[in-house]
Amino acid sequence: MTRYERVAAVLRERIEHGLYRPGDRLPSIRAVCQEMSVGISTAQAAYRQLMDAALIESRPKSGYFVLSGGAPSVLPSVSRPAQRPLDVSQWDQVLELVATQRDDHRLLLGRGIPNLEYATLNPLSKILAGLHRRTELNGFNYDKLSGSPELRQQVAKLVVASNCLLHPDDILITTGCQEALAIALRTLTQPGDVVAVDSPSFYGTMQILKANGLKALEIPTDPQTGISLEALELALEQWPIRAIQITPTFNNPLGYTMPTARKRALVQLAQRFDVAIIEDDIYGDLAFSAPRPPTVKSFDDDGRVLMCSGFSKTLGPGLRVGWLAPGRYRDQALHMKYVSTGASATLPQLAVAEFVAKGYFDRHLRFVTRQYQRQRDVMIQWVQRYFPQSTGISYPQGGFLLWVELPAAVDCVRLNERLAAHRIHVAPGSLFSASGKFRQCLRLNYAFTLTPAIEEAVRCVGSLAGTMVEEALQPLE
Amino acid sequence: MTRYERVAAVLRERIEHGLYRPGDRLPSIRAVCQEMSVGISTAQAAYRQLMDAALIESRPKSGYFVLSGGAPSVLPSVSRPAQRPLDVSQWDQVLELVATQRDDHRLLLGRGIPNLEYATLNPLSKILAGLHRRTELNGFNYDKLSGSPELRQQVAKLVVASNCLLHPDDILITTGCQEALAIALRTLTQPGDVVAVDSPSFYGTMQILKANGLKALEIPTDPQTGISLEALELALEQWPIRAIQITPTFNNPLGYTMPTARKRALVQLAQRFDVAIIEDDIYGDLAFSAPRPPTVKSFDDDGRVLMCSGFSKTLGPGLRVGWLAPGRYRDQALHMKYVSTGASATLPQLAVAEFVAKGYFDRHLRFVTRQYQRQRDVMIQWVQRYFPQSTGISYPQGGFLLWVELPAAVDCVRLNERLAAHRIHVAPGSLFSASGKFRQCLRLNYAFTLTPAIEEAVRCVGSLAGTMVEEALQPLE
Ligand SMILES: Cc1ncc(COP(=O)(O)O)c(C=O)c1O
Ligand SMILES: Cc1ncc(COP(=O)(O)O)c(C=O)c1O
Repeated sequence: MTRYERVAAVLRERIEHGLYRPGDRLPSIRAVCQEMSVGISTAQAAYRQLMDAALIESRPKSGYFVLSGGAPSVLPSVSRPAQRPLDVSQWDQVLELVATQRDDHRLLLGRGIPNLEYATLNPLSKILAGLHRRTELNGFNYDKLSGSPELRQQVAKLVVASNCLLHPDDILITTGCQEALAIALRTLTQPGDVVAVDSPSFYGTMQILKANGLKALEIPTDPQTGISLEALELALEQWPIRAIQITPTFNNPLGYTMPTARKRALVQLAQRFDVAIIEDDIYGDLAFSAPRPPTVKSFDDDGRVLMCSGFSKTLGPGLRVGWLAPGRYRDQALHMKYVSTGASATLPQLAVAEFVAKGYFDRHLRFVTRQYQRQRDVMIQWVQRYFPQSTGISYPQGGFLLWVELPAAVDCVRLNERLAAHRIHVAPGSLFSASGKFRQCLRLNYAFTLTPAIEEAVRCVGSLAGTMVEEALQPLE
Repeated sequence: MTRYERVAAVLRERIEHGLYRPGDRLPSIRAVCQEMSVGISTAQAAYRQLMDAALIESRPKSGYFVLSGGAPSVLPSVSRPAQRPLDVSQWDQVLELVATQRDDHRLLLGRGIPNLEYATLNPLSKILAGLHRRTELNGFNYDKLSGSPELRQQVAKLVVASNCLLHPDDILITTGCQEALAIALRTLTQPGDVVAVDSPSFYGTMQILKANGLKALEIPTDPQTGISLEALELALEQWPIRAIQITPTFNNPLGYTMPTARKRALVQLAQRFDVAIIEDDIYGDLAFSAPRPPTVKSFDDDGRVLMCSGFSKTLGPGLRVGWLAPGRYRDQALHMKYVSTGASATLPQLAVAEFVAKGYFDRHLRFVTRQYQRQRDVMIQWVQRYFPQSTGISYPQGGFLLWVELPAAVDCVRLNERLAAHRIHVAPGSLFSASGKFRQCLRLNYAFTLTPAIEEAVRCVGSLAGTMVEEALQPLE
């Protein structure tokens, strides 16, 4: 046990024995340093570990708190996917979700879109409008293939918060994070190759596997600590895995953040088996407490991590501004970028660069994460109140997505069909599996401004799910 | 011979016998109808055939003219590529060209970018600026996966000019024409497959072949009539060709437009061998005379033509607005679109849709094509004046690219190296070949506002090329 782990263990024991109770403020970092005779960074690392384990949270400007009654009592269970490479299916289901992303006649409780109504976004519109008047920018011309230098510089500054030291030339701007993921996978694989993924896993990435004729090896994943390194190691021994694809921070859909030590261990494992890692960090900037968790990329000392991210979850997906830090695969990735879409659109890049450079991005992040944290607690309360007993609920420390595991009797694909009559749509868990598992799970979005109409919709989902549980208990006529 | 072909033959004879001389105005359509007792559409088809053959041209509001002395005396030669499938190379050369697309310190005579300085583009900036003030549009949200309905509707109207009848749902909006081409190729092929291409051929498509592990079968191509259908037929008999990829209208780089009858014959050939056609029509709207030539797609009666196009050559490539009409492959293409970049950026689509709907696009096209037609003639004169004797020059009836074939002694890759000292860059012909052929050719752009500085640069290119011819004649010391 390292020093900080010992400090964390002591604090954890006190919490578990009720010395510090839910809602209590914990001793300050300085107090911990004094009491346990350790340095500040050790105390901070200990608190980070407790946050990773969802035992405590940090509230801006007030300190660390034991997680309150809002924390769900039951977490979703650890996934047990098939332990062999599978072809990915589910495109019809994904298309249905994607096709409804902008359906104004239904309440899309499961969508993956941030709140676009906050005033802290307004300067971005102003900047965009202004750019169109500055013809000297030549915004209609191609941008650089690797992306606008202004934007790459800002991204290089941003990723410092996740402990990454990247040069602007280490970054390729992409057309959304989706293109970053597609390029990373095409750079690393040939049709027929096997890719290990956390499970459940973002359906967009799964569909890239499908389109490229790749096989998904879904690894058991813990709703608190992420992909099982033990299972992954076994898989690496058994299968010719070309790449490991994970979303280790504020995971979509499961909500966990891999503890920092496990992130480091993952890189070591990949080094041992000489395999590349594709890290999707798109929710990483939406941390409810500072500092945000480090990326897997930050432990990458030989360029084997290809980090994918972008502004779709922080600013807006319609901008289509993402990025890829391709490590040692830069040359191949640049070729893939060229053939995929050429340079990305010019004006959105310039606008985002200016928005970040002028400090609007930080301000916006501070505001939205406070909102999302509160809304997470409200949404969890609603689910606890309206969903069947023994429903498991995730407890994300960032982002805006909740994973809900219903009793096994509930089939969320069929639930969605019943919800259609109420003009409500959820994201069924089966989207996040190669073979359509997790049908008793669903994803909810809490980025919405949570109105009574949304509460009513959540109640409706819970009540229809309850009906399905009861139907299952009734003997067939 | 059909009726219109007979009419065309009579007119052609008169031109060849000097009855109508270069620069002369030809009889009006009505006069031809009276003289030869044919209908208007027959006379029009005859004139179109003569235009396709580069014998005459139509000038807006003044009629048809025998091509004047500006027409080059020597055309580039018919290409004779290797008659077997090849792996594509040349990425280093392409990257160099692409990387300099926005180099402000060099005069990029070979670039593929339209003139972005014309005032007829100004309303587009205004529209874009205006959109950012209309928050109800929710321009930061994802657009529909297949593209904004407003834009697809405008595109469906636009393609009527090329004799295509498409429903808005037959169209997918893409992130530039490059993405349309990449999606089309990925939809149709597996690594190792063979794709037949016209030759020389756009390097962006060739690099897609490379990235996807496809083999290029380059078909001999005539600088006046395009891909040899005879050679193509032989190739189809001999090789397992999965797709035919061509740019049949205002070809980049060779400048030809396939005569209408050959476009129809191409579709029939593809039907006979049950193979798909990928038609790149990105220059098709830049016709110097109306009506613009029909697309191959317009003869597609069983959905085997995947047409790729966009606004990069008419409005500006930095917008990244392209489209794909995938015919019977829509479902697979939509999946490929999803995994490639998700939906395309929202605001550029809305802006282009409004620009087209309000008539600004037509006005802009009328203006730029008049400019480009004049500038073509000027550029041709300069090349005739400054380049070595017996240089072949293309004679495009639309677009803004000239193909120049120098004496065999000139190596344009080396020429480019010498030009670097003069801060000039041309596009060497080798970019347009799978294996680096056409080194004695280069591509010039005449979309520039043609200043004395550009004339001086063209003179410099010609003079350095002349030096290379002389060096070759000198015996080695
Ligand atoms: C984990 C994850 N990665 C990538 C994406 C795609 O992001 P973008 O819209 O930037 O392509 C999403 C969006 O749903 C996501 O949740
Ligand atoms: C024939 C051809 N097709 C496609 C493209 C790519 O167009 P876009 O910039 O829209 O991706 C070009 C541009 O150079 C081209 O010349």
